Amino acid sequence: MDATDEAWAGPRVGDLGELAVLDRIVRRLPAGSPVVGPGDDCAVVAAPDGRFVVTTDMMVHGPDFRWAWSSPEDVGWKAAATNLSDVAAMGAVPSGLVIALAAPQDTPVAVLESFADGVRLAVDALAPGCGVVGGDLSTSATFTVSVTAFGDLEGRSPVLRSGARVGDVLAVSGELGAAARGLSRLFREGVDPDGEPSRAATIASGADLDPDVARQRRPRPPIADGPVAGRGGATAMLDLSDGLAIDAGRLARASRVTLSLEADLDEVALHGGEDHGLLATFPAGIPLPGGFRRIGVVRERGASDLVRGGVPVATTGWDPYADWDGAAG
Amino acid sequence: MDATDEAWAGPRVGDLGELAVLDRIVRRLPAGSPVVGPGDDCAVVAAPDGRFVVTTDMMVHGPDFRWAWSSPEDVGWKAAATNLSDVAAMGAVPSGLVIALAAPQDTPVAVLESFADGVRLAVDALAPGCGVVGGDLSTSATFTVSVTAFGDLEGRSPVLRSGARVGDVLAVSGELGAAARGLSRLFREGVDPDGEPSRAATIASGADLDPDVARQRRPRPPIADGPVAGRGGATAMLDLSDGLAIDAGRLARASRVTLSLEADLDEVALHGGEDHGLLATFPAGIPLPGGFRRIGVVRERGASDLVRGGVPVATTGWDPYADWDGAAG
Repeated sequence: MDATDEAWAGPRVGDLGELAVLDRIVRRLPAGSPVVGPGDDCAVVAAPDGRFVVTTDMMVHGPDFRWAWSSPEDVGWKAAATNLSDVAAMGAVPSGLVIALAAPQDTPVAVLESFADGVRLAVDALAPGCGVVGGDLSTSATFTVSVTAFGDLEGRSPVLRSGARVGDVLAVSGELGAAARGLSRLFREGVDPDGEPSRAATIASGADLDPDVARQRRPRPPIADGPVAGRGGATAMLDLSDGLAIDAGRLARASRVTLSLEADLDEVALHGGEDHGLLATFPAGIPLPGGFRRIGVVRERGASDLVRGGVPVATTGWDPYADWDGAAG
Repeated sequence: MDATDEAWAGPRVGDLGELAVLDRIVRRLPAGSPVVGPGDDCAVVAAPDGRFVVTTDMMVHGPDFRWAWSSPEDVGWKAAATNLSDVAAMGAVPSGLVIALAAPQDTPVAVLESFADGVRLAVDALAPGCGVVGGDLSTSATFTVSVTAFGDLEGRSPVLRSGARVGDVLAVSGELGAAARGLSRLFREGVDPDGEPSRAATIASGADLDPDVARQRRPRPPIADGPVAGRGGATAMLDLSDGLAIDAGRLARASRVTLSLEADLDEVALHGGEDHGLLATFPAGIPLPGGFRRIGVVRERGASDLVRGGVPVATTGWDPYADWDGAAG
């Protein structure tokens, strides 16, 4: 069920006050099992091997999501999933999240409750056992979410972008292109005659039920394959946030190698972003672990970061928000 | 020197693009000494005793600061200082920060550079050796900063709000009331005839040079006294963010005690917020460590959280932003 319509009704954040709103949100979030949870000046999180990985990402209404296209639950899901994916890309197991959220005073409390539900659903589906150990609730003219995620390396070295070696196999886990196809369809069909994002148009066009649109709204990064890759000997890895080509270019430059694609990938698989799959390199001759499949090999560094059949592939991404005009649909 | 005027000139964020802007910011931030620094999907931070403390706080233009009253350097300082203070309040030594920042496209790059300078100055002054290990840069209609800070407990138990025992001494470290007096003066004198925040009025009134205004802009929480209190046997502690009375009420309720004030504190010291001093309890009969001074004792829980001379003290704060109308001066 899409909670969008129910979420936009009822009492507003400004009516209830911060403490009452927090109380209604916190109980919906996954608790996890921190050493000390919310309620003090800090949470305390275990770091069994004496280190932790950390990443932070901010999602802003307008450039990063539109209420016309995503429900509050979708936004909560995506905020959690994208950060968990960065933890997985180091080969780490997610160990906790903190979430800072700023909402306009007239935001219905039910929107924040649905947002929290989305966080819980994503954590339960993608990184069960992980929890939200702390947070902050503020007021802003612009709905803004900032998530910081932590992970445990289980005693292993982190899998960096810089570790690919000549002769390694290039492999990917997770979908390629679905999220970009979904966003492309929303930009094409989920708009009113003036080109503004429109929930009515999204529903009328059928885009609302498109599985690709579902992936744009709720990416399903293969979180478990991060530590699986770490245990399985991955030499380099990163999260596919901006598209295979641009992210492969980053890995190639960090490792001072050229990546040679063997797989037949279409344009959207190459250049579409927001799938949050994992791109990794493994030593040749070992079985690829988990959901990883071979798409190429690591070559000595040549003139290009990325080639296919000897032909350079542009390491550019695909950013439909590049021309964002500040509209807030 | 106040960098405000210089900071608001020159090329804009939208002109340079994210990577060029990031490059100019990152070099100004304190690096610290993480296991793995910025540039990969995550940073890796040491947690020598197998745990870390974590806190997050968002600062939003409008409700939390105004450009008419604070320079970008002030905002960077305050964003770092307030989060470091929460780490200290657990008895921990700050071990790292991550910062997510969203700015309007027409924000001068120099504003972000000055913001980074403010972060560096605060870290150097308050928690030398700590660094910014990661971050995120986004676009938003509303200038927004989200800081997450980490700390190391050095093998000790965290000092929680709930540990005060009857007979303990109540003590405080840091200033009381200065930040609130400064903000009060800005609201009174740093405004134009319509009551809107005004940089010209702030300068013309002399408020710009008021040491209390300096404390509002750049709080100096006694960060080092956090771990000093932890080592010195503190039984409970918290950060004075919302004012002594309201924060003392929190400690009293968490510990199920009544706090009895002995010191003669004026109204602004009791109810003014944003000083970010430390309120702690210590066993009777031991010397108070660091900058802590005795202001009362812990009594058995009675009808009130906080009393003075047997008379209840309202555990309410003082929030001049409560009626914030969305103005963005």
